[in-house]
Amino acid sequence: MSEAAPQPASPGRAEVIGTGLIGGSIGLALRGRGWHVTGRDIDPARAEQAAKVGALDAVGADPDATITFVATPAGAVAEAARRPLAEGKVVTDVAGVKAPVVSAVDAASFVGGHPMAGSEQEGVEGADADLFQGATWVLTPTGATDPRAFAAVRSVVSGLGAEVVAVSPQRHDDLVAMVSHVPHLTAATLMNLAADTALEQGTLLRLAAGGFRDMTRIAAGHPGIWPDVCADNRDAILEVLDQLLASLEEVRKVVASGDRRALLLHLERARQARQNLPVGAPPPSETVEVRVPVPDHPGVLAEVTTLLGELGVNIYDLEIAHSSEQEGGGVLVMVVATAALPVVREVLRVRGYKISARRLLGE
Amino acid sequence: MSEAAPQPASPGRAEVIGTGLIGGSIGLALRGRGWHVTGRDIDPARAEQAAKVGALDAVGADPDATITFVATPAGAVAEAARRPLAEGKVVTDVAGVKAPVVSAVDAASFVGGHPMAGSEQEGVEGADADLFQGATWVLTPTGATDPRAFAAVRSVVSGLGAEVVAVSPQRHDDLVAMVSHVPHLTAATLMNLAADTALEQGTLLRLAAGGFRDMTRIAAGHPGIWPDVCADNRDAILEVLDQLLASLEEVRKVVASGDRRALLLHLERARQARQNLPVGAPPPSETVEVRVPVPDHPGVLAEVTTLLGELGVNIYDLEIAHSSEQEGGGVLVMVVATAALPVVREVLRVRGYKISARRLLGE
Repeated sequence: MSEAAPQPASPGRAEVIGTGLIGGSIGLALRGRGWHVTGRDIDPARAEQAAKVGALDAVGADPDATITFVATPAGAVAEAARRPLAEGKVVTDVAGVKAPVVSAVDAASFVGGHPMAGSEQEGVEGADADLFQGATWVLTPTGATDPRAFAAVRSVVSGLGAEVVAVSPQRHDDLVAMVSHVPHLTAATLMNLAADTALEQGTLLRLAAGGFRDMTRIAAGHPGIWPDVCADNRDAILEVLDQLLASLEEVRKVVASGDRRALLLHLERARQARQNLPVGAPPPSETVEVRVPVPDHPGVLAEVTTLLGELGVNIYDLEIAHSSEQEGGGVLVMVVATAALPVVREVLRVRGYKISARRLLGE
Repeated sequence: MSEAAPQPASPGRAEVIGTGLIGGSIGLALRGRGWHVTGRDIDPARAEQAAKVGALDAVGADPDATITFVATPAGAVAEAARRPLAEGKVVTDVAGVKAPVVSAVDAASFVGGHPMAGSEQEGVEGADADLFQGATWVLTPTGATDPRAFAAVRSVVSGLGAEVVAVSPQRHDDLVAMVSHVPHLTAATLMNLAADTALEQGTLLRLAAGGFRDMTRIAAGHPGIWPDVCADNRDAILEVLDQLLASLEEVRKVVASGDRRALLLHLERARQARQNLPVGAPPPSETVEVRVPVPDHPGVLAEVTTLLGELGVNIYDLEIAHSSEQEGGGVLVMVVATAALPVVREVLRVRGYKISARRLLGE
């Protein structure tokens, strides 16, 4: 094994199943980095179109591919993943809801994934090789996930410019209900109320300045996927909607009673939280390589990565190195922000792991 | 009177009272167009600072100014407007709530105003000469407003690059509750909920993609003005909050019952409304000049402009021309979108006005 920081996977052969906007963008991005990409779609014309726009080298299946991206709707992932899994490939998907998908696939070589990047466009015509540059790409390993499968997917995905965050499938679903699904439903609701209020839709709405335009922008997206999303993630969405309703009732009370202090507190908290929304990765000078000797069984990888995910520690790079000294064991090599080192050290110590750390640049 | 289309007012002398972000931006924009601008502030240091950054020619009052912009908080407008009104000046303000302000000032030469442009910055340091370029600037004439005062304010304001919409003060307040105040409170509420959900604020929020960032952007603004806004526009805000709560309860029911069709309908309506959000003015080739002979009394101007405002007809330019043939009467000259001409003609006919129209360019 190398002592250098983990590197992105060298280009190989990949498959893409489902060649819409996301599948097409993955194909373009992989090919742009030297990968050979074969793809198929339930609609053969769509796969042909993907090849035509340069998202695929070939239409069909590739027995020699090592990784398969399933970019179908959530309900079709398990069926689509069956063949590549049987062929011994590492498989990942891109569906926006993870617990039902991961439990339906139920395979050690499958790693649930969700690139948090989108577009108001649809179809492979909207595909973009840079769609994932700087985007967060969530992976959802479980105790049953093969660490090598996780490391392989993480490496390819971060090679596309995305930042990988690992959380459990259910935690992912709870979080996207909060930061994506309910905001989307709320934006649509605000937009409809405003349209109802203006006598002629879209006219007195001229009074809507930038804030309203920002808030309702996502409501301009295609509604097509939402019935599935709301069905697949119903419980988490209902819970967040209930929280939102309760909070808005609180705000209503504060406005009705003229409680200036409570209102300021509410807005000041939100302001600080909004200003602290994380963006981008730190420069290499502010990261550190953490090495964790681990027993060589699947659950450890999920435990360590999702533990750090829960604590808000972003893993910028990760490699599973198999130790030559320790039979059946290995070393988990991760790159995290230097500022996160104390919390990483402490939380892993409590769980019985002993880590070593070194800076990546200079002394 | 000229037969040409109405032109922006030629530069003259103006006063600005309250030299924060908006007052400073008005000063910069006016001076950039050749106006002489004198200004003052309750905090003399702020007025000095405004002069230093080029927003004012002089600090103090200007007996020779013809128009005064009061850019103080809503509660201070009536007091600030008293002296310039007594000196015979036309006075307008920029407060975000209009009914209480307009009724507190209660003067024929006062025209309530609200530029729908903002910034996350504060103070004259954030002032920007182009802040109003392309922005909507609402004016709220009433039956008591002197048409010449309205025409004067409209002319200066549209000269700053803003598009003027006239609505009644109460209608303005209802609309901004819908498109500004409640969205702001909702953005803050979503942001706080998300921050509560992530164990460490601003970390798992890494899952928040562009849609969430868009929706919560306004929550990053300074909360300072909001206790006043919520107090001044309490009733309208409470009504809209109640509508939002009821609509979100409906959405909750739709998600809980798995009613795919109702969900699609909700989202599709919102999508269309969002895509129809009006932007910018049409090119001159798509506008038409409408001339309406009117009796020369104040109520007519408010009636005609707010009537068109309610119907969603934007008035891109407006002039009151006093007729030489008709003693005590005049002609209201307005530029509107050609597409709006039939509705303008019909609604004014019903009210007893007879209009003539001509295209501004070519034949």
